[in-house]
Amino acid sequence: MRTWILPEYIDDILPAEAARMEFLRRRMLDLFATWGYELVMPPLLEYVESLLTGTGHDLDLRTFKLVDQLSGRMMGVRADITPQVARIDAHLLNREGVTRLAYTGSVLHTRPATPAATREPIQIGAEIYGHEGVESDLEIQRLLCKALEICGVRGARMDVGHVAVFRALVVKAKIPAGLESELFESLQKKDVPGLRELVGAARGLDRASREALLLLPELYGGVEVLAKAEKSLPRLPQISDALSTLKRLAKVCPIPMSFDLAELRGYHYHSGVVFDAYCDGVAGPVARGGRYDEVGKAFGRSRPATGFSMDLRELAGAAAPIRERDPILSPAPNSDVKLAKKIAALRASGEVVIEELPGHEKFRAELGCTRRLAKKAGAWTVQPIKR
Amino acid sequence: MRTWILPEYIDDILPAEAARMEFLRRRMLDLFATWGYELVMPPLLEYVESLLTGTGHDLDLRTFKLVDQLSGRMMGVRADITPQVARIDAHLLNREGVTRLAYTGSVLHTRPATPAATREPIQIGAEIYGHEGVESDLEIQRLLCKALEICGVRGARMDVGHVAVFRALVVKAKIPAGLESELFESLQKKDVPGLRELVGAARGLDRASREALLLLPELYGGVEVLAKAEKSLPRLPQISDALSTLKRLAKVCPIPMSFDLAELRGYHYHSGVVFDAYCDGVAGPVARGGRYDEVGKAFGRSRPATGFSMDLRELAGAAAPIRERDPILSPAPNSDVKLAKKIAALRASGEVVIEELPGHEKFRAELGCTRRLAKKAGAWTVQPIKR
Repeated sequence: MRTWILPEYIDDILPAEAARMEFLRRRMLDLFATWGYELVMPPLLEYVESLLTGTGHDLDLRTFKLVDQLSGRMMGVRADITPQVARIDAHLLNREGVTRLAYTGSVLHTRPATPAATREPIQIGAEIYGHEGVESDLEIQRLLCKALEICGVRGARMDVGHVAVFRALVVKAKIPAGLESELFESLQKKDVPGLRELVGAARGLDRASREALLLLPELYGGVEVLAKAEKSLPRLPQISDALSTLKRLAKVCPIPMSFDLAELRGYHYHSGVVFDAYCDGVAGPVARGGRYDEVGKAFGRSRPATGFSMDLRELAGAAAPIRERDPILSPAPNSDVKLAKKIAALRASGEVVIEELPGHEKFRAELGCTRRLAKKAGAWTVQPIKR
Repeated sequence: MRTWILPEYIDDILPAEAARMEFLRRRMLDLFATWGYELVMPPLLEYVESLLTGTGHDLDLRTFKLVDQLSGRMMGVRADITPQVARIDAHLLNREGVTRLAYTGSVLHTRPATPAATREPIQIGAEIYGHEGVESDLEIQRLLCKALEICGVRGARMDVGHVAVFRALVVKAKIPAGLESELFESLQKKDVPGLRELVGAARGLDRASREALLLLPELYGGVEVLAKAEKSLPRLPQISDALSTLKRLAKVCPIPMSFDLAELRGYHYHSGVVFDAYCDGVAGPVARGGRYDEVGKAFGRSRPATGFSMDLRELAGAAAPIRERDPILSPAPNSDVKLAKKIAALRASGEVVIEELPGHEKFRAELGCTRRLAKKAGAWTVQPIKR
């Protein structure tokens, strides 16, 4: 057995890609920081009760479980950092006003989300807690667009939905939980014949609700969708609010935006705007986010929340390439004080200086140096390496 | 049950500490990068065969095990990144010459190493592969000292040993494996009466070897220890080489160095110099390292290796405090283009600008802003907030 084979959907990140990911990680965290998002680092492990409370069955299945040798209790390795950050907002920071938090770190999934996915995404994201107005949704959307811009991704665009539309219809028509989840499933799969069948067979559903539910999968496209929805959907305050929020988002979004009122991803925990950002070079969404005002409830302190998260690996695949200077080869300074000073100055300026170790001169080419430190007229200077 | 309680020895890292750790992480990785150490990011999970091959029983006990749902095989969550980096050197990069690698990331331990330890250290380190001379030990030692210097730790000092001294005595005296591990244990515990008993009871041990083994625990202290060892220990080539390596290290080490020839930490996988660095404010060693030339063997490619690793959490506890400017409070720019530009310029210069969200003015104090953006004579300027 070859002992160095990794499990499926688990990979090493080698130098070129690691440098790129580290670069993007810093750009993202710096961006978040200058907007006032404070970095937190929740642990890899928690008791399953805290890790999975208030989240769905999906996350449970995706979470690796471990026994805690100290307590005998079951722990999970996080499959999503978002609920952890909500826990920190709810209990550790315990602020009354608005809290902006950022995070990044590896998460593990028992199975890959798609056949092209990794089981170890490197999640990075930002969240606003404590504000329920559209202003925080606007800020999060602007922050995400800025993040995509500074990564240099191409063809960035956004798909936006609002779970309150479907939810308002369900409440208005007093649809029972069983039917609600069947309707949800068929909408989520864009299974129009299935939806038609469910709506047709449902008892006691008024005509306006029937028509509205059947219309949802058609409410997909540009900003004209919002006008159509306004005209055709029942005039419920929650629906009007949702459409007016979407209009405000559309007005200021710097990247192309399309709408999908049948998009109910995360319906079980999302409560308002939901969005997926896409860009060239990434198969699925490059960022996902939305509003989930109930998330803190499981921790005993329900706070409105809105935010987004990305996978640094996917982002690195789509981002503009970084240009780094080739390293400089140098003799080891040993007792040459001038050389030691020169090397230190170059390194302090950000140059990579590799000191050559004796006995390995013939493998020099592997180091990729195109310049070297050499003594010229008594002074150490950087010179090109002749091929 | 309070659902937000974390397991023992597992903690969240909150904003102030997280900012400090992120700062140190970058300084360390930048230092390593400018010295030519390329960053790699091995996965959190591997099959136990690859994760634990060639490592000791200790690491096995410290490693959380998981079943891979895709293969049915046992996986482990890494408890140490070093063997993973050795695997990458041995198989993925596959260079003939010298390879310098750096890494950082969380590791998990089933139990804390000490009652004051965490079960999730954030390991950071640097390794040189492919060079067996003292020059690479010297480079690693200089790099570690530089790392401690730029973190601003106080009272940095180093304890150095060399496992070849004890190993040479064992080989010379043909000490059987059972006795070897008993001797190792008593030396490691500094259990001099136990050592005396073992040596006294051992059969067939020549007088020089007896005396040498009993002398080892006394060979502890400043550079004078090396002269004493040279005079008193048997004249074996491995011992002379070891002492000459230690002498060279002592000569150039910029921080106080002490020697301990009975220090055998990692005896099972270390093969040469071993060192622990200490500083004020950290109970145990702040960095540990040494030479372990056999580490790649388990992966089918034995390459000499020397390096060190640290825990970023411990380092953050000992490092000089970072000074950050307080954030600037600003109205949300909405359609005010001048304000939006001013905010963008401040953020680009590294300032933190927090946009105030409506309805939360009374919780302003929580944001910690001491300055604000205000309009003065038609221009947005930064002004102090009056208390």
